[in-house]
Amino acid sequence: MTKKLILDLDAGIDDAMALAYALASPEVELIGITTVFGNVPCAQSMTNCRALLELLGAPDVPVVAGADRALAATEPYTTMVDVHGANGLGGVKLPAPRTAAEGVLDACATAAVSFLLDAARRYGENLIYVPTGPLTNLARALALDAQAVARIGAITFMGGALTVPGNVTPGAEANIANDPEAADAVVRSSVPVTMVGLDVTHQTILPAAEIERWRALGTPAGEAFAAIVGYYSQFYLTHQGHLGGCALHDPLAVAAAIDTTLIGTLGINLKVDVAGPFRGRTVGDAARLRDVCKTAQVALTVDAPRFVARFCERLTCALA
Amino acid sequence: MTKKLILDLDAGIDDAMALAYALASPEVELIGITTVFGNVPCAQSMTNCRALLELLGAPDVPVVAGADRALAATEPYTTMVDVHGANGLGGVKLPAPRTAAEGVLDACATAAVSFLLDAARRYGENLIYVPTGPLTNLARALALDAQAVARIGAITFMGGALTVPGNVTPGAEANIANDPEAADAVVRSSVPVTMVGLDVTHQTILPAAEIERWRALGTPAGEAFAAIVGYYSQFYLTHQGHLGGCALHDPLAVAAAIDTTLIGTLGINLKVDVAGPFRGRTVGDAARLRDVCKTAQVALTVDAPRFVARFCERLTCALA
Repeated sequence: MTKKLILDLDAGIDDAMALAYALASPEVELIGITTVFGNVPCAQSMTNCRALLELLGAPDVPVVAGADRALAATEPYTTMVDVHGANGLGGVKLPAPRTAAEGVLDACATAAVSFLLDAARRYGENLIYVPTGPLTNLARALALDAQAVARIGAITFMGGALTVPGNVTPGAEANIANDPEAADAVVRSSVPVTMVGLDVTHQTILPAAEIERWRALGTPAGEAFAAIVGYYSQFYLTHQGHLGGCALHDPLAVAAAIDTTLIGTLGINLKVDVAGPFRGRTVGDAARLRDVCKTAQVALTVDAPRFVARFCERLTCALA
Repeated sequence: MTKKLILDLDAGIDDAMALAYALASPEVELIGITTVFGNVPCAQSMTNCRALLELLGAPDVPVVAGADRALAATEPYTTMVDVHGANGLGGVKLPAPRTAAEGVLDACATAAVSFLLDAARRYGENLIYVPTGPLTNLARALALDAQAVARIGAITFMGGALTVPGNVTPGAEANIANDPEAADAVVRSSVPVTMVGLDVTHQTILPAAEIERWRALGTPAGEAFAAIVGYYSQFYLTHQGHLGGCALHDPLAVAAAIDTTLIGTLGINLKVDVAGPFRGRTVGDAARLRDVCKTAQVALTVDAPRFVARFCERLTCALA
C-alpha cells in the first residue's frame, strides 16, 4: 500500500534532492511539505519548495508555513547558510512559483502543526513524516497534541551525531544546533523516532559524475539540479575535502524512512544538551540507559552503495 | 584451550572485582598484572594488586610496575579518587603483601612494557590483554614495538563513552581523561581493540544483596570484598543514585574479553579529543568514517542479566 509522506524542509540543497527523491519513490505519495527555518529563513524555504515542486512537475503538492524561529528565540531566524548559497539553492534562480505557499509564517508554526496533526489523525500508521531541518514544528505539534503525533507510522529525522563529531561544533550537528530545545523535547517524549545523523550521512557521498549526467539530460530540472548541486558539491570539496564529494544528508533520511533495511540502528533513549560547550549534542540519556523501552532508533550503519545507487537512479527519473 | 590473560590495573575497587572474576574464570590463566596510575597512584595499585592476589589465593601471579604518570605529564600522578576510598580499596586494610611487585616504577612503564611485549611474542594469538585504567602502558608498548602488540589475540579495554556522556566531564570517561594522548595513540594505531565503555558498563549494576552474600561466606576474602565493595556501592548510591547500585566497569571488560557474546559491538575508527572542553572524549574519526577496515569494536549493547548472573556466580567461587 502506498504510504503518505510529509516532508518538513528548510530547503536547502540537500532538501531539494530529498524532495526529488521522494517524488520519484513509488512507495510513497508526497501529500505535503511543511517548512521551517534552518538552511535558510522559513520564508525562503517556502519559496524554494514551491519553485522546486513546479520544476519537478508536482505543482499540486501543498507547501505549508512553519516555524520562523527556534522555540527559545525571540526574533525570526534570518541566516542564509553558506553551503546552500545565496538563496538556499546555490544562487541558482528558478522560475518564480505560480502559486503561493499556504498559511501565515509565525513563531508557533500554526499552519504546519495543524497540517501535520490533521494528517496524523487521518492517516495514522500510514503516514511517514520526515523532518530534515530543526525539529521545531514537531516539538510544537507534540506540545499541542502528543496523542495525535503518536499515531504517525514513522518519524524519521535527519539530524544529530551520536558516534561522530558535529558539523557546527565538535558536539553539535546543524539541525539540532538550530533548535536544541525542540530536539530535546522530541527525543524525551515517548514518541518513537528514527535518527539519521552524521554517523551515516557522512558515509553517503554523491559521485561527482552524477551531476554531469543530470546536466546532460537537457531538461530544465536536470540543468537546474546540476547547477544547484554543483554549487553544493564544490563547497564540500573546498571545505570538507576528505569526504570526496557532497553528503546526501536529507535524501538518506527520506530513503531510510521509506526502506528501513538501508540502515542499521541502535535503540537508545536520547537527550540533547542545551547548555555549555556541548549545546546541541545528541547523546544517550544516562538516566534512561537501562530502560527496556527505547524511544529512539539511531542509524549507525548504512548500506551506502545500495542507497547511492538507488538515489542516482531515482534522481535521474525525477529530473528526466 | 586456556588463553593467557594479562590485566593492566589501576586498582581500584572495580579492578579488585575484575581480578577476582579473572581468577575464577576457567577459560583463562592469569599470567600477570601490569599496573598503572588512575584510580590510585601506580605504587598503590602495585601494593593493592599484590595484597589482593594473596587474599584470593593466587600469590604466584606476578605484579609488574607500570607508568606512574600520563604520557604528557611531567610529574608522577598522586590522586586518590574518592569513589575508591582512601587506599583505593574503600579504606579497607588488607594484610601487608608478603612479596613485592616486580620492576621499578617510572614514567616510561619500562617493566610493564617489557612484560607485555615478552608475553605478546611468546603467546601471540593466545594472549588476551585487558587494560582497565589509562592506556599509558599500551601506548608505550605500541611506541616501542607495534608489531609485537599486533600479535596479541585480543585487547579489550575498559574506558570511554561513545553514545553516553562521560563521568568526569560531559564528554570524557575517567580512564581516557587520565591520559587522552595515550588513548588517542592506541585508537589511531592499526591494532584492533575492543572498547568496553560507559555505554555498556552503566547497564551492569551489582545487586546490593550480593555484597551481603559475600560477607555471609565468612571467609577472609568474602569479608574483605564485602567491606571494599560495600564502600563503593554506598558511594554510587549517594552520588549516582539513578544507577541503583555500583557499576561493574572493569569486571565487564574482563568478562567480554573472555566471552565476546556478552556484548554487541559497532565497528568504527575512533579518535580521542585532546584539546578544549571535549578533551578525553572518545568519538568516531570523521576522516576514517568511510574506511572499510574498522580498528575498534565498541560495545554498545550488553546482555546484562547473563553477565551479572555469571559475575555473581564467579565472585562467590573466588571469595569462598
